[in-house]
Amino acid sequence: MAAEIPESDAGAVQGHVDALASIREPDEEGWTRRVLTEEATAARDEVARRMRSAGLECSVDGAGNLIGLLPGRRGGPAIVTGSHTDTVLGGGRYDGTVGVFGAIEAVEALARAGIRLDHDLVVVDFYGEEANSFGLSCLGSRAVAGNLKPSHLDRTDPGGRSLGEAMAAHGIDPHAALTCDWRSRGLKAFVELHIEQGPTLESSGCAIGIVSTIAGISRAEVTFHGRRDHAGTMPIALRHDAACAAAESILAAERLGQDGGISVTGRISVLPGAANVVPETAQLTVEFRSPDSEWMGDRRAVFDEAARQSGERRGVGVSIEWISDEPPVRMTDSAAGAIAAAARAAGRPTMKLPSGAGHDTVHMASLTSVGMIFIPSHNGRSHCPEEFTDASDIVSGIQVLAHTLVELDRS
Amino acid sequence: MAAEIPESDAGAVQGHVDALASIREPDEEGWTRRVLTEEATAARDEVARRMRSAGLECSVDGAGNLIGLLPGRRGGPAIVTGSHTDTVLGGGRYDGTVGVFGAIEAVEALARAGIRLDHDLVVVDFYGEEANSFGLSCLGSRAVAGNLKPSHLDRTDPGGRSLGEAMAAHGIDPHAALTCDWRSRGLKAFVELHIEQGPTLESSGCAIGIVSTIAGISRAEVTFHGRRDHAGTMPIALRHDAACAAAESILAAERLGQDGGISVTGRISVLPGAANVVPETAQLTVEFRSPDSEWMGDRRAVFDEAARQSGERRGVGVSIEWISDEPPVRMTDSAAGAIAAAARAAGRPTMKLPSGAGHDTVHMASLTSVGMIFIPSHNGRSHCPEEFTDASDIVSGIQVLAHTLVELDRS
Repeated sequence: MAAEIPESDAGAVQGHVDALASIREPDEEGWTRRVLTEEATAARDEVARRMRSAGLECSVDGAGNLIGLLPGRRGGPAIVTGSHTDTVLGGGRYDGTVGVFGAIEAVEALARAGIRLDHDLVVVDFYGEEANSFGLSCLGSRAVAGNLKPSHLDRTDPGGRSLGEAMAAHGIDPHAALTCDWRSRGLKAFVELHIEQGPTLESSGCAIGIVSTIAGISRAEVTFHGRRDHAGTMPIALRHDAACAAAESILAAERLGQDGGISVTGRISVLPGAANVVPETAQLTVEFRSPDSEWMGDRRAVFDEAARQSGERRGVGVSIEWISDEPPVRMTDSAAGAIAAAARAAGRPTMKLPSGAGHDTVHMASLTSVGMIFIPSHNGRSHCPEEFTDASDIVSGIQVLAHTLVELDRS
Repeated sequence: MAAEIPESDAGAVQGHVDALASIREPDEEGWTRRVLTEEATAARDEVARRMRSAGLECSVDGAGNLIGLLPGRRGGPAIVTGSHTDTVLGGGRYDGTVGVFGAIEAVEALARAGIRLDHDLVVVDFYGEEANSFGLSCLGSRAVAGNLKPSHLDRTDPGGRSLGEAMAAHGIDPHAALTCDWRSRGLKAFVELHIEQGPTLESSGCAIGIVSTIAGISRAEVTFHGRRDHAGTMPIALRHDAACAAAESILAAERLGQDGGISVTGRISVLPGAANVVPETAQLTVEFRSPDSEWMGDRRAVFDEAARQSGERRGVGVSIEWISDEPPVRMTDSAAGAIAAAARAAGRPTMKLPSGAGHDTVHMASLTSVGMIFIPSHNGRSHCPEEFTDASDIVSGIQVLAHTLVELDRS
């Protein structure tokens, strides 16, 4: 029988959104609070304060993860929930933060309902989930899963500083980050509450999404090697125009993402970049995402061939380097089942959907059972100042998360 | 009857190429000697030395043009010939310089033949012909033609320095540059010897090109205003991808330049420029060139429509600003006739052809009769280190130029 858990107050929830949103980098657009900034540290101080006020025992692990422990009646393998409070440049107020303060709210809701879990409960604000200037995302969850490697710490930003140096300057000992993994700890499950960041829930009128799979990501850097010529004197038929070959490949990627999955060419540069010079080199990144490994492999092959043909027609050399290839991560049936049961208990309609975005859950999946609860994003907007989720939808997410913790505790 | 003018020595000509090529910016690729650098000044000192050695009276005018005067037997309206010795970044050894040292060689060839002209002869090394970081080309010939305006001197480079300040720092008084025009001087004619910079003469096996028209140039800055979205979560059908709209316009410009005329999109930038973010804005320059004004107007209209349609299909706003529109400049029949007669006298085959590149001749055309002599460019390459013209072809050009000066003097 479902426990009676009182709903969080929408006004209080909006207060948490606003309190964290007010801590932002002053000179950047939107709601910017990037990892390794003073503002990221200040936001975590505010989260720690909230954790302690909710009765959690607060600590910071070797990788900078902020951890709040609620000891269970019997201890044993912990149930873990949380997300992150750092943002992208020019980002919004909900991505990540909802899953952190929402977890603290869920703890308080359980306390108000007089429910004490048998298992230890850990609320975590993972360090640096968003991709940073060192080209590495999920710093904290990566470390916890034992996936942070010394080579990661040697990565440098455009200014030549290493990630290890940058972490040390923010009070995190890089050696401790490499050795703080949770692989020897038994965990019961991990569940993450997060905004969808896409339009599916809102357009379906469904309050709760149960994530089926987090999409895999294949990313390539594609370089077209043409020939620089005076654009006023070299006839088009005799040119080797790198930008025209790149333009065809951009449109090929767009077409390939239209029948399911996702594709994008987000970064493009052309040299020498003069109005009257035929472009000599063009570089672009292309990314394919899908919950389906086979779809990804197929699209990669078709894209490779399309780019090569665009180059061949123009006598333009093409080099394609697939720099990353992360496989899709399926959510655990038991965790998804617990979320479904929790949503029934909380009286919220659900739908299953994949996640096109990566999350800390990807790394937690190598440690334990994992599940994700999605709530709607208005117009599907995310990673932009317009990112918005209604407070009543956040309340639904917190309600389902609280019930999920109870379900996991019982199972 | 044609005068007997002895041919220049190919070895000596190659020596002039090499001597000027050796004066280059040490940290840049190719044969770089941009206006407003020490190296540009050093090259002009070498040209002045050569002018004096050829018996020319050497001076520098208010706009920085280096002028060598050979007084004629009867004086009167001067015949002017010359080009420029500055280069583009990463440029070659022949563009411009051939027309300066070639003019000095022609003066020496006439002296060796015992020919003294009736008219004054002026050899000029025009200041700063190539486009500079202030976005202005043909500084010297523009000033001479009375086309340099105070607003030009207020233009700033990316570092915020004005062109007037930069010129003053190189010893050129901006006020003098604005008032040194030759409009009140009577001129007999201007003729410029230059490499073709395209493949037509070489592929036709023809030593001398007589330019019919210098192409007009229409240049636009095109901006696509899309919407930034998380590329992992926003389905392609719901995106407003500025880069995809720009890619279609790049290919539209390429198609439009294939039936005559020339088009190029040489500069492209995409923001925010992250691999996993749908591009919000894309900017590109597009340029159409043709000797035919009607072709240009037609292609501009077709391109505008194509860009708008690419945007419309994607809900991407398009703004197109045609920032320059220089009309084609026809060479004078009398000057072209003098070059044709000179080539016959020198025993060199000719063909008529348009110039896709702009030249100092464009500005001189507002002062007097103008003509251009083209010599072949190997593989049509130019504005790149591979730019090459055989010494024997330069000798042909000098021979035809010397005969042209005699023809103009007689006419």
